[in-house]
Amino acid sequence: MIAVDWGSSSLRAFRLGAAGEVLEQRSSALGAIACEGRFESVLAGQIAGWNDPLLVLAGMVGSRQGWIEVPYVDCPATLRDIATGMRRADAAALPGRQVWIAPGLRYRNDNHAFDVLRGEEAQLCGLMQRVDTQAHLVCMPGTHSKWARIEGGCVREFFTAMTGEVFDILRKHSLLGRLMSGDSSLDRDAFLQGMDRARQSGGLLHHLFSVRTNGLMGVLQPGQLSSYLSGLLIAHELLDSDWCTQARGHTVHLIGAPALTAAYVLALRRFDIDVQQHDETLAATGLLALARAADLHSFS
Amino acid sequence: MIAVDWGSSSLRAFRLGAAGEVLEQRSSALGAIACEGRFESVLAGQIAGWNDPLLVLAGMVGSRQGWIEVPYVDCPATLRDIATGMRRADAAALPGRQVWIAPGLRYRNDNHAFDVLRGEEAQLCGLMQRVDTQAHLVCMPGTHSKWARIEGGCVREFFTAMTGEVFDILRKHSLLGRLMSGDSSLDRDAFLQGMDRARQSGGLLHHLFSVRTNGLMGVLQPGQLSSYLSGLLIAHELLDSDWCTQARGHTVHLIGAPALTAAYVLALRRFDIDVQQHDETLAATGLLALARAADLHSFS
Repeated sequence: MIAVDWGSSSLRAFRLGAAGEVLEQRSSALGAIACEGRFESVLAGQIAGWNDPLLVLAGMVGSRQGWIEVPYVDCPATLRDIATGMRRADAAALPGRQVWIAPGLRYRNDNHAFDVLRGEEAQLCGLMQRVDTQAHLVCMPGTHSKWARIEGGCVREFFTAMTGEVFDILRKHSLLGRLMSGDSSLDRDAFLQGMDRARQSGGLLHHLFSVRTNGLMGVLQPGQLSSYLSGLLIAHELLDSDWCTQARGHTVHLIGAPALTAAYVLALRRFDIDVQQHDETLAATGLLALARAADLHSFS
Repeated sequence: MIAVDWGSSSLRAFRLGAAGEVLEQRSSALGAIACEGRFESVLAGQIAGWNDPLLVLAGMVGSRQGWIEVPYVDCPATLRDIATGMRRADAAALPGRQVWIAPGLRYRNDNHAFDVLRGEEAQLCGLMQRVDTQAHLVCMPGTHSKWARIEGGCVREFFTAMTGEVFDILRKHSLLGRLMSGDSSLDRDAFLQGMDRARQSGGLLHHLFSVRTNGLMGVLQPGQLSSYLSGLLIAHELLDSDWCTQARGHTVHLIGAPALTAAYVLALRRFDIDVQQHDETLAATGLLALARAADLHSFS
């Protein structure tokens, strides 16, 4: 089968063998927003030459602005619950194929506030194939970081922190970004200084201004300010939730591309949390598991 | 004399009488950035027809990117300290006039982190003319909110929260802004719901995502999301610093235009803090006081 992780800003397609191994993989910047509604033709172009009859998709392609809207499945959710929530998309331009889209997940927390994710359920389903049924804590950095707890073959709960997007728009559009220069490679010292600042009193809205004052006063060089801001934000993500406190001395499963997770490895280890890294092919593993749980595998 | 509050994005000029009363006032969007280095000619145009020989300026016009860089004066700072820090700008295009620029203030907090302000020292000097020498807490909302403590004729300490700028860039550039619609008038209920959310666990980076989920789930209407975000951010500004806790049951001096301070009045009263409002002519009062403390008044 073909597994596709189709988020807002990118598309990653994996051609899988019978045992779930990745035979080929392709990626594109034609995310669910950039493809402007032309989901069928974009997908046909991306998988040209791959003749597998079954396609399972996850991500923003299943949102209200996507190909079809696939309703959220409520947590706690088992692999079977998520599989049952998949919807088939009409794909006349792909004759002889079945296209299925996985649902996102919804969680209502103790404060009765809703949280949602879409796409990360594929990674979580993949991880559940690899770990035991004990409780596991998962961190998936990105535009919106997602933290989840899986236990007993079930996604129990999760929460979102908008760390990546806030970092990005502060660099591009705020007064803080104007002081920055150089590439965005990680400066370890500046990153750790940002983390230290986050532990002090005053809160994030106050700490952000220290990016500016550290630049103005020459405490940091223009090329270091981006790493300082990254350390500040990631440390706030970790410190402001109870999950990180509970994870001290334990292991967190970290899922994402190395370029994205490097800073989180540094931050989590600094807080005495062990890290087990998984690459993004975990999404393909999860989509295969969903296809099997939904009995779609007999089709391939 | 003529007092000019010349910030990044606007210029406000006040023509003052001998007793400090505002005779005329003008404002322009030609802020210290928009005027692109043409400080003398822009100023000459703004005060056309006003023949007073003394001009005292404050704000980003005195920054590194301004007309001349006026070094920061360290806190605690008296009116005389600030007056002594003023610098005269060369203004050949304004013959027969003296142009002075007030310094910004710098404060190194208990964590040895620097904070700075530029422009708000004029308001603080104005307020010190109106209140007794007891301790007074001051809140000046804006792109960057400034909180200050004045006592004994001295600006003791202050801190910055980037609330206004973060609100602005999240509305314009983030995924949250895409869900918003309607004007930006304050929806009281949504604002208070945002404030309530800020008191819950999880931190600001997590709470921000609730703007999206409340929009997606229909908990709030598109026209309410901006007010909800405003309540969330302002409540974080207040809750994340110790100053607000200490101010409960007391009065905070709130300085700014009514359109800007309305939300802060609502937020502060919700936290059992009394508010005494002052309008922005306080800056002119402060600049006159600085001119007198520097013995420039004999010139006018």
